[in-house]
Amino acid sequence: MSSAVRVPTRPRVDLLISGARAVLVCDDAATTLEDASIAIRHGRIADIGPAADLDHRIEAARTIDARGRLLMPGLVNLHTHLSMTLLRGVAEDVDLKQFLELVWAEEARVMDPAGVELGAELGAVEALLGGSTTALDMYFHPDAAHRGAARAGLRHVTGPVFFSFPGPDNLTWAERMEFARSWPQLLAEIGGPFVPPALMPHAMYTVGLDGLRDIRALAVEQGALVHTHCAENDADVHDTIEASGMRPVECLSETGLLDLGPVLAHAVRFNQPERTATARAGASVAHCPGSNLKLASGAADLVGYRRDGITVGLGTDGCSSSNDLDMFSVMRLSANLARLVTNDPAAISAEEIVRAATLDGARALGLGDRIGSVEVGKEADLILIDTRVPHLTPLREPHTAVVFSAGRADVRTVLVAGHVVVDDGRMTTVDTGQLLQAVAQRLG
Amino acid sequence: MSSAVRVPTRPRVDLLISGARAVLVCDDAATTLEDASIAIRHGRIADIGPAADLDHRIEAARTIDARGRLLMPGLVNLHTHLSMTLLRGVAEDVDLKQFLELVWAEEARVMDPAGVELGAELGAVEALLGGSTTALDMYFHPDAAHRGAARAGLRHVTGPVFFSFPGPDNLTWAERMEFARSWPQLLAEIGGPFVPPALMPHAMYTVGLDGLRDIRALAVEQGALVHTHCAENDADVHDTIEASGMRPVECLSETGLLDLGPVLAHAVRFNQPERTATARAGASVAHCPGSNLKLASGAADLVGYRRDGITVGLGTDGCSSSNDLDMFSVMRLSANLARLVTNDPAAISAEEIVRAATLDGARALGLGDRIGSVEVGKEADLILIDTRVPHLTPLREPHTAVVFSAGRADVRTVLVAGHVVVDDGRMTTVDTGQLLQAVAQRLG
Repeated sequence: MSSAVRVPTRPRVDLLISGARAVLVCDDAATTLEDASIAIRHGRIADIGPAADLDHRIEAARTIDARGRLLMPGLVNLHTHLSMTLLRGVAEDVDLKQFLELVWAEEARVMDPAGVELGAELGAVEALLGGSTTALDMYFHPDAAHRGAARAGLRHVTGPVFFSFPGPDNLTWAERMEFARSWPQLLAEIGGPFVPPALMPHAMYTVGLDGLRDIRALAVEQGALVHTHCAENDADVHDTIEASGMRPVECLSETGLLDLGPVLAHAVRFNQPERTATARAGASVAHCPGSNLKLASGAADLVGYRRDGITVGLGTDGCSSSNDLDMFSVMRLSANLARLVTNDPAAISAEEIVRAATLDGARALGLGDRIGSVEVGKEADLILIDTRVPHLTPLREPHTAVVFSAGRADVRTVLVAGHVVVDDGRMTTVDTGQLLQAVAQRLG
Repeated sequence: MSSAVRVPTRPRVDLLISGARAVLVCDDAATTLEDASIAIRHGRIADIGPAADLDHRIEAARTIDARGRLLMPGLVNLHTHLSMTLLRGVAEDVDLKQFLELVWAEEARVMDPAGVELGAELGAVEALLGGSTTALDMYFHPDAAHRGAARAGLRHVTGPVFFSFPGPDNLTWAERMEFARSWPQLLAEIGGPFVPPALMPHAMYTVGLDGLRDIRALAVEQGALVHTHCAENDADVHDTIEASGMRPVECLSETGLLDLGPVLAHAVRFNQPERTATARAGASVAHCPGSNLKLASGAADLVGYRRDGITVGLGTDGCSSSNDLDMFSVMRLSANLARLVTNDPAAISAEEIVRAATLDGARALGLGDRIGSVEVGKEADLILIDTRVPHLTPLREPHTAVVFSAGRADVRTVLVAGHVVVDDGRMTTVDTGQLLQAVAQRLG
């Protein structure tokens, strides 16, 4: 009963996301595709096209029905401290200085490596459920944090933290440098979605100029991303000048770190020369308005920084200062705060805010060719947002809906490198109930 | 087989909400009760006590398990335009003046009485699902809006709107006044949870002084609440001075309206005499920071107004300017913006923000003895928030969690006057799917 006629087989992919109401590509043109499908193979976007065409051209091992949903790149949280989920609500109604005192005391109690790992896992779960697929995470015991976050499935960019003093992890400078030299190897052993190695001087007022030079040398050797707090508030600038005789960006420039294009968290108090130098060096800013307002640090000039040519991504900061990891809340606040700061209701478009939270964040991490937009060849870090809810009805322009009406709970499906880590609002990688119990026991 | 021994019967109630993790009473002392139950009879709170005691003392027709949940008063949205849900996303990146031009054009197209009713129903559903049980709603065709919102189960405070010109509803002044005289009767006929009648001059720059005097006379006669836009931005103040030679609050004072204790929406540009006069008259402010920032109107001085003795509630404004009806987003923004405006991280506590969104809003409406806190004798306008989610773990102080970590989607159960209108995240009063379809058809 065999036949000589050979039926042409259709290309086979791992996953088809079919018939999204709209795809927010998040390229520089802010392209929107309507009624589109995405094919994923080996963790990457293999094809994008009209559902009516693509769905018939390919065969998929699994299909996700995306009707009524927006499809967009996963959000990139460009500055956080995931493990500090465990410190949520520890320090309220205080400024940055009092905050650090309260937090550092609690850290000494809770944050051994097991605590850091648990907190990072909790943070990664919260982040993923809320549509963030990548986080730039600064915390001590980064190996422990990476184990927790990678287990949950997050693209978790982290690395050793540096202070000139022993710090909560009680290491000498030599021990920090030794650990940092082993970091790329350790990162590879722990595994998880691809990330570059990173080195993280805490801030200019907590790391001396010699230390910054050591870190620069190692970063060049390792090809590591550099991440630091920078000009977070007046006290940061004041203490930096007191310690070094220079402003924060001058410290980075003087030690050669700026030229490596680091990601500078907060940058609330940049003066014009610092803005110009940051732009010229190709360094980036992680704008964290939720944390900045809550600690009364001030309002960074998002629009002005962008006009100066600085790549600006968005971040939540840690849960002890901003209390959650909600990037939708940060997008909306960024858009609204920019209007207040500039006194201009057209200060920044929803398209620009969404790009800041996706492609610009990816670029800041040196991952702009790998994630941050919905384009063929990129890794499939994608989220699906259900629009069939009252607060997204009617829906006129999808970027506007994402920034000004949607919320983290509208995220129903999350993929990292093609792997479905959130399916219909539930984690596939972690038993969330057990995790919450483990946290209660740990803090109990 | 009858027995002479009479078993003492336990008091019978309609509903028992049992074992809430914490009850945020929202009284002036910001009382928190742990592991508490609430008994509801005839729509009112009949008893409150420790679960271990109350659950055994009474018999309930229905019990809701509130373990792991926060119980608090329903949120009071003190300024909105519910029907404008239909105009969501119509006018982006524009200031108040351009906004009004764009919106008024679209209103002419969509907002006949049927459109107003549909939009108000959609808005009421969005509001209730997000934990708001009361809204002060300004829109033309208020009878149509009230039908839609009351059907959904919202406590919907509304009334006739006044402009000196025909406006989108194309009425003469005499027709407006005639309609307004019939409003209390109409309100009673339509039904829904108890609300006072209201009269709503649009703004000082759209209603002349004679008109304001007419409205005052009728408000006194009817015992009506007065609600108006006031000093929303620089143009509002400028146009008011141009039209009347006086600033907005002076217009209210001059015409006697201020002494009736109206609810003044926005109040971004109050000068000190206006603040003092508003406080002295017992008038209230509806603070709408989401809308104010989006339209670049400015930032009202929430903390200063409170210090001056003004009762300040919170509002979302309409969905055409703030794009949704999310009072959790407004609470968080209010707390953060106050810190920026005052440069003080302790500017306003989470307890004060929660009270602004509940009891203070109720007081502004003249309903402070009826709703706004969880106290025996009050109507049971209550919400339950699920805390067993990653972003609310750990949970140290519940008011802080509500303001800085919780979101509308954490609201699982909503009661208005003891009636369960949202049950496990779903409307009991309206078929939400059918409603969204009706909206699509209407706008299609």
